[in-house]
Amino acid sequence: MQNFDYQTPTRLIFGKGVVEKLPEVMAQFGKKLLLTYGGGSIKKIGLYQKVYELLKGYEIIELSGIQPNPKYDPSVLDGVRLCKEHNIDVILAVGGGSVLDCSKAIAAGACYDGDPWDLISYKVKAKAALPIVDIITLAATGSEYDCGGVISRTETNDKIGYMDRHLFPHTSFLDPEYTFTVSKKQTAAGIADAMNHTIEQYFVEDATLLNDGFCESMLRSLMVNGRKCLENPEDYTARAEMMLACTYGCNGILALGNSYSGWPCHGIEHALSAYYDITHGEGLAIITPRWMKHILNERTLPRFVKYGINVFGIDATLGQWEIANHAIEETYKFFESIGIPMHLREVGIDDSRIGEMAHHIAVNEGLDKAYAPLAEKDIAEIITASL
Amino acid sequence: MQNFDYQTPTRLIFGKGVVEKLPEVMAQFGKKLLLTYGGGSIKKIGLYQKVYELLKGYEIIELSGIQPNPKYDPSVLDGVRLCKEHNIDVILAVGGGSVLDCSKAIAAGACYDGDPWDLISYKVKAKAALPIVDIITLAATGSEYDCGGVISRTETNDKIGYMDRHLFPHTSFLDPEYTFTVSKKQTAAGIADAMNHTIEQYFVEDATLLNDGFCESMLRSLMVNGRKCLENPEDYTARAEMMLACTYGCNGILALGNSYSGWPCHGIEHALSAYYDITHGEGLAIITPRWMKHILNERTLPRFVKYGINVFGIDATLGQWEIANHAIEETYKFFESIGIPMHLREVGIDDSRIGEMAHHIAVNEGLDKAYAPLAEKDIAEIITASL
Repeated sequence: MQNFDYQTPTRLIFGKGVVEKLPEVMAQFGKKLLLTYGGGSIKKIGLYQKVYELLKGYEIIELSGIQPNPKYDPSVLDGVRLCKEHNIDVILAVGGGSVLDCSKAIAAGACYDGDPWDLISYKVKAKAALPIVDIITLAATGSEYDCGGVISRTETNDKIGYMDRHLFPHTSFLDPEYTFTVSKKQTAAGIADAMNHTIEQYFVEDATLLNDGFCESMLRSLMVNGRKCLENPEDYTARAEMMLACTYGCNGILALGNSYSGWPCHGIEHALSAYYDITHGEGLAIITPRWMKHILNERTLPRFVKYGINVFGIDATLGQWEIANHAIEETYKFFESIGIPMHLREVGIDDSRIGEMAHHIAVNEGLDKAYAPLAEKDIAEIITASL
Repeated sequence: MQNFDYQTPTRLIFGKGVVEKLPEVMAQFGKKLLLTYGGGSIKKIGLYQKVYELLKGYEIIELSGIQPNPKYDPSVLDGVRLCKEHNIDVILAVGGGSVLDCSKAIAAGACYDGDPWDLISYKVKAKAALPIVDIITLAATGSEYDCGGVISRTETNDKIGYMDRHLFPHTSFLDPEYTFTVSKKQTAAGIADAMNHTIEQYFVEDATLLNDGFCESMLRSLMVNGRKCLENPEDYTARAEMMLACTYGCNGILALGNSYSGWPCHGIEHALSAYYDITHGEGLAIITPRWMKHILNERTLPRFVKYGINVFGIDATLGQWEIANHAIEETYKFFESIGIPMHLREVGIDDSRIGEMAHHIAVNEGLDKAYAPLAEKDIAEIITASL
C-alpha cells in the first residue's frame, strides 16, 4: 500500500430544496459575487431567478456562456478580468462541471498578478484563490468535490487538468431535481464520465480489497441508476444516487493507498476533445473498451477477471480469458445501450490527425508511466481502433 | 434518498514514516502544546521520544494516563485545566481512539468558560475548540476522521457520544507500523469495533446501492485483513488496509443519504461499558449477533439476505430464512474465531443489573426510533441472550 496525503474540505449540501441554505452559506463571504454559468439552461429551470431571489442585497457580476470543455480564451480570461475589476469576494458557479472547472481557474487567476496560464500550465504555484460555492445541475464530473478543473486552449490544442489544493469548492449544493431536465445525451455522457473515472482508478498494479469493493459498487450503482435516469428522467432516487456517485469520481477517495494508474483514457480523450471539441463523456466511452482490449495481457488478466465477475456478474467458473474478453464486451455494450455513439467517426473524428494527436498525447500525458504503459504507437493504435 | 449536509475537513497523512511531517503541520499553530496519551505504550514503541525530537522548541505540557473508555473525571477535567493554565495553542493526541476522544472533549472545554459537562451533555453548543492533531497507534474507532468522542462519567454511569463540527482533527497521522505491537486482544477488538460501525450503518430501511457496496467492501476487507493482522502482526499491507478501513467507520461517508439506523448496538454497549468498563469492541462483538437474531423478521429479512450473500458469500439459491440465519451464525463465528470472548459473563457481566441497564438505555439512547425499534423489554432480552 502506498503512502498518501489526503484532504477534501468541501461541504456537501445534498437533497431536495437545499438551495434554500444558500444565503446562510454565502453570509460567510463579502457581498460582491461573480455568478458563472453556461448557455442559459439554469434560466429554463428557474434556478437563475431563484439565486437572485435568495441573494438580494448582493452585488452580482455575471460571466455567462461558459462552454463545455471550457476555454481559456475568452472564459477564464474574462472571468479573471471581472474579478479584478469588481474586486469580487466569492464565485458562485451554477451549472455542470465545465462551469465549475472554469470557475476554479478564474478563482486562482483572480489572486495572481501574472498571466493565468502560468498557473494552469504549472509554471507557477497558486498562493491563494477566491472561495467558490457551486450549485450543480449535471451529474458527471465530480468537480464539486475535487480541487481540479480541465481547461482548453484552442490555439495550441492544449487541454490541461489543472489541480491545486486551493481549488476545492467551499460548499457544493447538490439538488437532484435540477438534473431532471438533463437530456438523454448528456445524462449518458455523465454516466460514462463517472464510470470511466472509476475504471481509471480500478485498473492499477496494487489495489486494496477495500478500494476494489468501493469501485465495483460505484460501477454497479452507476449502471443501474444511470439506466433508470434514462428511462424515467424524473426518478428522484435514481437521479440522487447517480449524483452522489459522480461526486466521488475524482477526489481520490476511491483509490487511497493504491498505486499510480496514469488515467490513460483521460490522457487520450483530452487530446481528442482539444482537437475536435467532442463531448468528454462520449470520448471516454468510445476509448475505454478499445484501451481495455489493447492492454489485456497475461499481467493485466487478473484485474479484468475481477472486474468481470464483480461488476458484470460474469460466471466465475468460466476460463480467465473468456471472462476478461466478455467483461470488455459488456463494457462496450453498456455504453452502446445507453445511446452513446461508439465510434469516433460518429462524433466527427476521422483518421487525418491521428499521428499528430498521438504524438501530442505521448509528449504531454506521461502514459509511458501508466499501469499499462502506452507509447506513441500504442496510443495511435487505440485511437485507430476507436474510429 | 435522504437529504444530508456532510463535511470532513480533516487531513489524513498516511503511511510509513509520515510522522516526519509533524513539524510542518504543527508550524501552523502556536508553540504551546498539550501532549495527551494513555498508559505509556507510545514510550515502548519510541513514538513519545520521536515526538520530542521532532518538536524541539515547543513548550510541551503532558496529560498522560488517559484510559480506555476515557473518563470525564479526572482526564477531561485535568486536560481542560491544563489548557487554561498554560494557554495551550494546540492539542497533540498520541494513541488510540480513547486518547483522541478525550482530547476532543478537552479541546471544546478549553474554549468554554463553564462546566465542560454542559457541552458533552448537549446543554450548551460549543462556539470553538482548540485545534487537534493526532498520531494514531490503534486501528479501531475512526475518531481520527470524525467529529465525535465518547466520554464516560463514572458516578452517573453515563457514557455519551459527544459530537460537534468543531471537533474534527485538523490533521491525523496514520502510520500502520505503529500498530505492529498492538496485542491480539486489542487488534481483535478493533476489527469488531470497525465492523460494527459498518453494520450499524448497513441495517437501515432505505440504503443506496452505492452505500451497500461500500459497507460490504468494508466488512470483507476488515475480515480478510483483520485475520492477517492476527496471524502476522507485522504484515504491513494488512495493518495498513485495516487502518484505512477503520478510518471510514464513523464519519458518515458509508451512509450518505441513507435513512436513520439508530446505532442500536452502540446504544446498548455504551451502557454495558459505562456500568462495567469492558472493552468497547468486545462488547459490540458480543451484542451484535444477539441483536441481529432479535430483530430478524419478515420486514428485516431482505437486508439479512443481502448481507449474507455479499459479505459472507452464502449461496444465493438457498431459502431466504436459511441465508439470514446462516449470516448471523457467520457473524458470531467470525468474532469467536478472532479470539473475542463471546459471552458477557466472560468479561465480568452477570444478570444482576440488566433491568437497570435496560432502563438507562431505553431512557437515553432513543432506540425506539431505530431501524428495528427496541423497547426496554427488547433491550433486556438482547442483553440476557448475550450473557
